Amino acid sequence: MEPIHSAEHSIYFESGLSPLKDIINQNQYSKIFVFADTNTSALCIPIFRSFLDEMEDFDIIETDPGEENKNIDFCIGIWKTLLDFGADRKCLMINLGGGVITDMGGFVASTYKRGVDFINIPTTLLSQVDASVGGKTGIDIDNVKNMVGTFSLPKAVFIEHTFLTTLSNREMLSGFAEMIKHGLIADAQYYETLKNSDYKNIQPQEIYRSVQIKNKVVTEDPLEKGLRKILNFGHTIGHAIETYALTHDKKPLTHGEAIAIGMICETFLSVKYCNLTTDELNDISKYIFSIYPKYKIKEKSFTKLLSLMQSDKKNEGGQIMFSLLEKIGNCNFNCRVTSADILSSLNYYNSL
Amino acid sequence: MEPIHSAEHSIYFESGLSPLKDIINQNQYSKIFVFADTNTSALCIPIFRSFLDEMEDFDIIETDPGEENKNIDFCIGIWKTLLDFGADRKCLMINLGGGVITDMGGFVASTYKRGVDFINIPTTLLSQVDASVGGKTGIDIDNVKNMVGTFSLPKAVFIEHTFLTTLSNREMLSGFAEMIKHGLIADAQYYETLKNSDYKNIQPQEIYRSVQIKNKVVTEDPLEKGLRKILNFGHTIGHAIETYALTHDKKPLTHGEAIAIGMICETFLSVKYCNLTTDELNDISKYIFSIYPKYKIKEKSFTKLLSLMQSDKKNEGGQIMFSLLEKIGNCNFNCRVTSADILSSLNYYNSL
Repeated sequence: MEPIHSAEHSIYFESGLSPLKDIINQNQYSKIFVFADTNTSALCIPIFRSFLDEMEDFDIIETDPGEENKNIDFCIGIWKTLLDFGADRKCLMINLGGGVITDMGGFVASTYKRGVDFINIPTTLLSQVDASVGGKTGIDIDNVKNMVGTFSLPKAVFIEHTFLTTLSNREMLSGFAEMIKHGLIADAQYYETLKNSDYKNIQPQEIYRSVQIKNKVVTEDPLEKGLRKILNFGHTIGHAIETYALTHDKKPLTHGEAIAIGMICETFLSVKYCNLTTDELNDISKYIFSIYPKYKIKEKSFTKLLSLMQSDKKNEGGQIMFSLLEKIGNCNFNCRVTSADILSSLNYYNSL
Repeated sequence: MEPIHSAEHSIYFESGLSPLKDIINQNQYSKIFVFADTNTSALCIPIFRSFLDEMEDFDIIETDPGEENKNIDFCIGIWKTLLDFGADRKCLMINLGGGVITDMGGFVASTYKRGVDFINIPTTLLSQVDASVGGKTGIDIDNVKNMVGTFSLPKAVFIEHTFLTTLSNREMLSGFAEMIKHGLIADAQYYETLKNSDYKNIQPQEIYRSVQIKNKVVTEDPLEKGLRKILNFGHTIGHAIETYALTHDKKPLTHGEAIAIGMICETFLSVKYCNLTTDELNDISKYIFSIYPKYKIKEKSFTKLLSLMQSDKKNEGGQIMFSLLEKIGNCNFNCRVTSADILSSLNYYNSL
């Protein structure tokens, strides 16, 4: 497949990592670090190595897996490790893993000695279709997602289908929610294609289409001043539910499971605020429920969920701002929604 | 005085802060925070207020003074305070203070929710002639100076002479070292002017000239790929001595005192590596000693100093890189110096 050229960097698909060697040679990096969590280290580094017939030495920096470790303490650990390894400004960091690794690795790299080059190799479906493009890095503080971060572009991104063989169905489903979102906000036909596809067996060209959609949006609005906010569809409520579940549920939701819930709630709001038809609402709810498990949003969590939405980065002046569907394939942003209607949407979800 | 227009922002001189109101109105900030340490809060916020006949409300975020507090723990505290105050992406942070405040405040602002606007009002001579320009933000980790940071431009910088009335002679002397450096690396005539001036009574046009010199260099090379490294003259050795003194001396050196030592050592190296004349070496050493106190670089610190220089951000591939004088007013960068010669330069300083 042709690489997608984004602002100042390229996203390579099914390249077998062959451009990586050139990038390393051209830039004459002083040292190469591969950053991974203990899971990806075991599963993905062997695949990574198998792509490379010869490559300069690299050091592996490992962290614990999971969103709960995407925090400042781990960052400090990585910064110090880089210093201990003698990493200078001309080093390269290769982030190999899911969104936690590319978000946190990107943040560490973009701030270590005021910024060193990094390359992202997303190994989960979620990170391939979402974190792979857009130049966002970030870590959580006090469980507030991505409260601290930068807008920093990786030198390159490599998307390889082979890595998906390491994933469970649940992890595939987590990434699939973002793909559904891409169809809903920007491409009705793609949404139909996905409805007829099998999330357990995603095709490379579907991933390609998702990255294309996201890339088009972020290239037009890299710093999220306007249009880019449509990518937030399903996330205002979804993020709040994800954060709540992370600290309150025995088995926390995956990102995609939370976003699936958020998309149903925000589709409900789209009917009132953006004239989406109830037929479209029913279609979307029915489809999402056909593949995602039902979740009970506890009534006692409602107040906390609202306050989590208040602290969402996309808000301005204390108002909770939503991105809502006008119709399938079209999304508006900066929709101000009342708290009462937000609660109605949570009740709507629970009633299904 | 005319403002200096730097890349994408302006540095205002003796404006009485009058453009500040316009900037705030144009950008419709949701909230304004003034970040200061307890010293500047007491001394400089009254001056800051006296400039403003009317201004929207602002919240003050205070930190403890001193380089030893320019660390990640304080950053985390400020990020959390911003969150507690309900700061969104449209808030403005005004950093009012010395380099610790503008470095750390800039880092916090450039990473909070992936970046909010900030304005720097440097209140020390050092921060007016140095930290005011160049878009560097940073914090120390394990006492390694600016090990983590970003290149992020403030929305504007305001330089007001009145703030200097709050400084001791020692603080004036600290900033004066950077001014001497500007003359030595880029403007021989300015160096002569400074030799005939009184550091206790710096004139606004001298500050202006220093900012002009630094601005010209950083505009040509914002990310320190080449030319900008000349600003590092005196700093490879100076930083190491400063860091060592911070953790080992009862009364640590000021930045300028350390840089003054570093400039003498690196002027010594300039004779061997860049054909500076011994007359020029003697002139510089004599002048610096006429205003800066003598310091004893302990021999037992030499190994530690070398290892601190090794971890300097400007180095590549393990080699310690210097910026050295070709003649007064001209500086080269990327000069590789042997460890033996570095030690000779420390002994030279001690022998004076």
